[in-house]
Amino acid sequence: EAITFGVLTISDTCYQAPAKDKSGPKLVRLIGETFQNAEVIASIVPDEQELIQRELRKWIAREDLRVILTTGGTGFAPRDVTPEATKPLLEKECPQLALVIALGSLQKTKFAALSRGVCGIAGNTLILNFPGSEKAVTECFEAVSELLPHAVHLIGDEVALVRKIHA
Amino acid sequence: EAITFGVLTISDTCYQAPAKDKSGPKLVRLIGETFQNAEVIASIVPDEQELIQRELRKWIAREDLRVILTTGGTGFAPRDVTPEATKPLLEKECPQLALVIALGSLQKTKFAALSRGVCGIAGNTLILNFPGSEKAVTECFEAVSELLPHAVHLIGDEVALVRKIHA
Amino acid sequence: EAITFGVLTISDTCYQAPAKDKSGPKLVRLIGETFQNAEVIASIVPDEQELIQRELRKWIAREDLRVILTTGGTGFAPRDVTPEATKPLLEKECPQLALVIALGSLQKTKFAALSRGVCGIAGNTLILNFPGSEKAVTECFEAVSELLPHAVHLIGDEVALVRKIHA
Ligand code: NA
Repeated sequence: EAITFGVLTISDTCYQAPAKDKSGPKLVRLIGETFQNAEVIASIVPDEQELIQRELRKWIAREDLRVILTTGGTGFAPRDVTPEATKPLLEKECPQLALVIALGSLQKTKFAALSRGVCGIAGNTLILNFPGSEKAVTECFEAVSELLPHAVHLIGDEVALVRKIHA
Repeated sequence: EAITFGVLTISDTCYQAPAKDKSGPKLVRLIGETFQNAEVIASIVPDEQELIQRELRKWIAREDLRVILTTGGTGFAPRDVTPEATKPLLEKECPQLALVIALGSLQKTKFAALSRGVCGIAGNTLILNFPGSEKAVTECFEAVSELLPHAVHLIGDEVALVRKIHA
Repeated sequence: EAITFGVLTISDTCYQAPAKDKSGPKLVRLIGETFQNAEVIASIVPDEQELIQRELRKWIAREDLRVILTTGGTGFAPRDVTPEATKPLLEKECPQLALVIALGSLQKTKFAALSRGVCGIAGNTLILNFPGSEKAVTECFEAVSELLPHAVHLIGDEVALVRKIHA
């Protein structure tokens, strides 16, 4: 069955001039090349915690939308609030997944240490924060893409869900 | 002096059919082979946050019980709630210890990224979340076993405790 | 322009006998050797959460003080509360920076897993928890020193700040 990915570009600049968004479209292409069955929706929001959370909440609530990749807003600048917007929405944190992304990025550049992205699960949706450059999202995507199908499968464990409901 | 380890298997399946528990007994054997002076108690609970916490609290309160190794419930399935049950009980988190466990596991398989286990200290007790397979607990145990005696010694620092009480 | 570093030694022993503080003065020297333009202030507090936080808050509030390096209180002993004192003050956590410090230290000794130091941002100030030994602070400093100028520059992003104020 097809699953839907959400690609959320988080950037004041790209919100005002969508043509400047390189990392969002790059992620859409990478998803299409890697997962034959995937559908992708994409959106751009400015670096505002409430607007980020509103978009994330909408996507978390969609049954078909199972993976959200955000790009941007993970750095050290005052406007970088993507992890702060993401964390309160997570029911479960996935620190080892964030670790694998970080290790993959650190192999390319030590400055990957200046990303603060988090990973976690909200409802039936896996959320991964990637940095805001085309190069960085490519590296991060490659670090985790082979894990995503299994992760999505586990999160949607029907047997377990039924058991939970009847517990 | 002898210290007591607690091995907590967290699994709906093993709770209903204890004979299916492979990772708990494996941990009991590993502890016995590695630490001559250790005593081990073991228990099995289902993947229910309250039941996990009740058992953890009982063991944390025991003066002689100094290390708790949990196995199971660290994954991405809806019923996997071991980290969520553990975290609220921790007075101190030990992220670098979780890192060493993760790095050890990632050397064997990239899918170790799908464990979400945490490590931390509650009272005089060190708690480590391991995944639920016999292979995984062996790798995780090997990654940290040489650190455990020193960790336990530090947590039980009598001089420091006395200083704290009289502060 | 010159920036100010704060070096905070957190240690009951050094608070009572400042001459015993080796890691604080070592950090002051390393900062001086590495950053020509840096000014450094240093202080010693005992392992008391409130006293640590009082000193951190004072430094966070100073406009010129942009990086705080703490040394000590990151371990497993009951009196080690530096991460617990630091975390509530952080507006943003920087887990990947803590990861780079941990990886650098783990290359030297596996016992680096017994440090629990955190990194994060409070106001315009970057805070890094280092362990309490002269050897450990040297390793940790070397692991991140090349990242600090860029990190400080990003945290102080004037354009972004102005945008935030007028949002
Ligand atoms: Na400041």
